[in-house]
Amino acid sequence: MIFDVMTLFPEMIEQACNYSILKRALDNNIISVNTVNPRDFTLDKHKKVDDTPYGGGAGMVLMAQPYVDAYNSIKQSEKSVTVMLSPQGEPFCDAIVNELSGYEQIIMLCGHYEGFDERIRDIIKPREISLGDFVLTGGELPALCVIDAVSRKIEGTLGKIESANDDSFADGLLEYPQYTKPREFMGLKVPEVLLNGNHKDIAEFRQKCRLERTKAKRPDLYKKYLENNNS
Amino acid sequence: MIFDVMTLFPEMIEQACNYSILKRALDNNIISVNTVNPRDFTLDKHKKVDDTPYGGGAGMVLMAQPYVDAYNSIKQSEKSVTVMLSPQGEPFCDAIVNELSGYEQIIMLCGHYEGFDERIRDIIKPREISLGDFVLTGGELPALCVIDAVSRKIEGTLGKIESANDDSFADGLLEYPQYTKPREFMGLKVPEVLLNGNHKDIAEFRQKCRLERTKAKRPDLYKKYLENNNS
Repeated sequence: MIFDVMTLFPEMIEQACNYSILKRALDNNIISVNTVNPRDFTLDKHKKVDDTPYGGGAGMVLMAQPYVDAYNSIKQSEKSVTVMLSPQGEPFCDAIVNELSGYEQIIMLCGHYEGFDERIRDIIKPREISLGDFVLTGGELPALCVIDAVSRKIEGTLGKIESANDDSFADGLLEYPQYTKPREFMGLKVPEVLLNGNHKDIAEFRQKCRLERTKAKRPDLYKKYLENNNS
Repeated sequence: MIFDVMTLFPEMIEQACNYSILKRALDNNIISVNTVNPRDFTLDKHKKVDDTPYGGGAGMVLMAQPYVDAYNSIKQSEKSVTVMLSPQGEPFCDAIVNELSGYEQIIMLCGHYEGFDERIRDIIKPREISLGDFVLTGGELPALCVIDAVSRKIEGTLGKIESANDDSFADGLLEYPQYTKPREFMGLKVPEVLLNGNHKDIAEFRQKCRLERTKAKRPDLYKKYLENNNS
């Protein structure tokens, strides 16, 4: 999987990919992460990438020319998708992660300041994705979340040790509680059922916990789960 | 605002705060970001922070002792809140950003691998927040999103130039389209109304765009907006 990230802060992307599972996936050539800085494409001698908005208002708007030219400089594979990170997009979720992981290349546009000149959308026609209903300074953290979540679905990224992580959301329920050594910590004991080695009992206990937890913490997911499992 | 981040990857947090608006807020002492590594608190000579789960299953579980001791090492202010980043939490949104920005200190626990020993929750009793319904390798990117989104609400973080950004979600509608120079780019013209200097026309045009966009892209937000504005 190739990730091409258009950003005014390429080092932020590069540094954050340098840890843990992403680092290993990069080292093993399972993914590659490239950055393209629109500032390198401005025609202005001061390397200006933004200007004031037409019609007035606070903030600066990212200019179309550097972004469109930067975009056109990226070599596109046949199975490529272009994503704009913006509060106006579809809310990011596991279903989108699965969809994106089917491509060979994901090109991402990170915004900054007040936002993109609308003509960038008109010309590039990206798929718009939002990390959630909150405002961030730029698209870099959302792009990193896309890289992380999608990479985890690419074969070879996760070792045996991590693979169980994927269970969350896959069937629509939250995870069961986990316990590790010691058996007792500050007076709190590991539930007896997890120690008796009866696999059927353990599976039942965990499924019961998942249902109870999802019902208590995320009634919206619980309702969806019941609907899917009664149909 | 003080952010204390408990993480196995402290450099990832420190590096990512070194850009743009967060860097300026740090330089101006409007926020401070500290990291605490639970690995520095293990009693094990191999500095082990995780172990296999009781009851079986793939993955490793973060041990209670290093996390509880690391947590207890953090000096808590009177107006402090502790947040665990986990897929089981409340979905992060602008309302939570506003709430969190009312504290003096936000302590965050970043997970990794299979998750936390449940007794960490039992003892620390954190508020659990989820970035969304997708799986990431660790809590570091979500913690950075919390730092970014909350810092933007702290007085002094944003200059005049950026302050308009906050408009998104504040009244429940998506942003209007933005345009900057030139007036025409690749045959695409800036809408005439934005050039005529009539503030009333411009305001009407923008509000119309916001309503249309929200209706088309986020019917859920649009419905909520109508409910709030008819009551």
